[in-house]
Amino acid sequence: MTYCVGLRLNEGLVLLSDTRTNAGVDDISTYRKMFTWANPGERAVAMMTAGNLAITQAVISKLQNDIDAAEPGSNTLMTARNMFGVVELVGAAMREVQQRYGAGLAAMNESSAASIVVSGHVRGGRPRLFLVYAAGNFIEASDDQCFFQIGEHKYGKPILDRVVNPQTPLEEGVTAALLSMDSTMRSNLTVGMPFDLAVIRADTFAFEQNRRIEVDDPNFRDLSNAWSDALRRAFADLRTIRV
Amino acid sequence: MTYCVGLRLNEGLVLLSDTRTNAGVDDISTYRKMFTWANPGERAVAMMTAGNLAITQAVISKLQNDIDAAEPGSNTLMTARNMFGVVELVGAAMREVQQRYGAGLAAMNESSAASIVVSGHVRGGRPRLFLVYAAGNFIEASDDQCFFQIGEHKYGKPILDRVVNPQTPLEEGVTAALLSMDSTMRSNLTVGMPFDLAVIRADTFAFEQNRRIEVDDPNFRDLSNAWSDALRRAFADLRTIRV
Repeated sequence: MTYCVGLRLNEGLVLLSDTRTNAGVDDISTYRKMFTWANPGERAVAMMTAGNLAITQAVISKLQNDIDAAEPGSNTLMTARNMFGVVELVGAAMREVQQRYGAGLAAMNESSAASIVVSGHVRGGRPRLFLVYAAGNFIEASDDQCFFQIGEHKYGKPILDRVVNPQTPLEEGVTAALLSMDSTMRSNLTVGMPFDLAVIRADTFAFEQNRRIEVDDPNFRDLSNAWSDALRRAFADLRTIRV
Repeated sequence: MTYCVGLRLNEGLVLLSDTRTNAGVDDISTYRKMFTWANPGERAVAMMTAGNLAITQAVISKLQNDIDAAEPGSNTLMTARNMFGVVELVGAAMREVQQRYGAGLAAMNESSAASIVVSGHVRGGRPRLFLVYAAGNFIEASDDQCFFQIGEHKYGKPILDRVVNPQTPLEEGVTAALLSMDSTMRSNLTVGMPFDLAVIRADTFAFEQNRRIEVDDPNFRDLSNAWSDALRRAFADLRTIRV
């Protein structure tokens, strides 16, 4: 399983992904699901993947190959005019990969389901957050729905629903994403540390953070414990209300 | 969809169910999913159902019919020696109903999946909480796992994981169940009010509460708002911790 969450806030973009994959609970591995590209000061692009790992790796590899083999005038993640151009490239790569493997997987009763959160800021545009489906079509986050989740999304949604909105400061967005991940990880063993975190502050066109949070990260442990304590205190304070 | 949660605490049993059923999001109805039987001072039994509504209604109707048609010496929910006897009757009724309809439903590609939370206290025994599966087999709650959820269980699990344990006072158990329901209802439209609440205090062999919480219940609204406020305050207090 997988859990990835992306926030589109007025101050910028926050992306957080776990790294656990499993083919059955007896076959668990660690794979990166966060992929980033940057030309600092001009663009920063990040993607997170869920679903069939071979499918999403093929999509990411194709996009990277196209960058590596680019000639002047090529349309790639690093040259697309804006984020809409970027997400169109991702959607096209997804369609190509699904055409190559989809029927074969279906014949073996395997799912080719996959989804990709695509996010970034290209100079001249605004920070944008998209969700690309297996058919290569996509939707965009808005002020009404300013976050996307892929993978095991249910456990971590209540906290986001309650504390995240477009006005949330970027640092609080990081905290909310981490707490959402923490709730998910407690309830589903197939979501696990380490995490990958990417933060793009609006109008910097660069990654303010792009790093791994390791299994033994003391600050994450402190955050998780402080939140548990705060929840228990908040719950105790409800004693005066009886339904 | 459905959400039902049952807690087995040292002080007694708490059961809470929603009332929404849907055959597609364009076909939503209100059905009771909580069923109770009592011989005050001797036994109190409550059940909550999820899954195929025709299947669970057939099980409940059979159990009720057996009570109505009982002759001296009959083994029914009202006469079974203990809660183990009660849950065996429920499991047997489930098996009988599945044998009658299961193959026909499968032939029409419809699911006969169903589950029933069975709970109660019979004089001479202890308060017990069981989960009956579609095959009529069942498991029992323990000190390690003191609650069962059926239906849309994921959104409402993080709060239970954090605040409920066997030492939780009965009234706090009610609050925890209501907050778990509130989180679920906010995230899944197919779970909805009114709710049915049943509370059996240990060694009273009777219902301390057995009532409906209506859509416009002011105390529930107060609880829901107070919890949202408390969560937001608790979240704001985490500002000092940066991961």
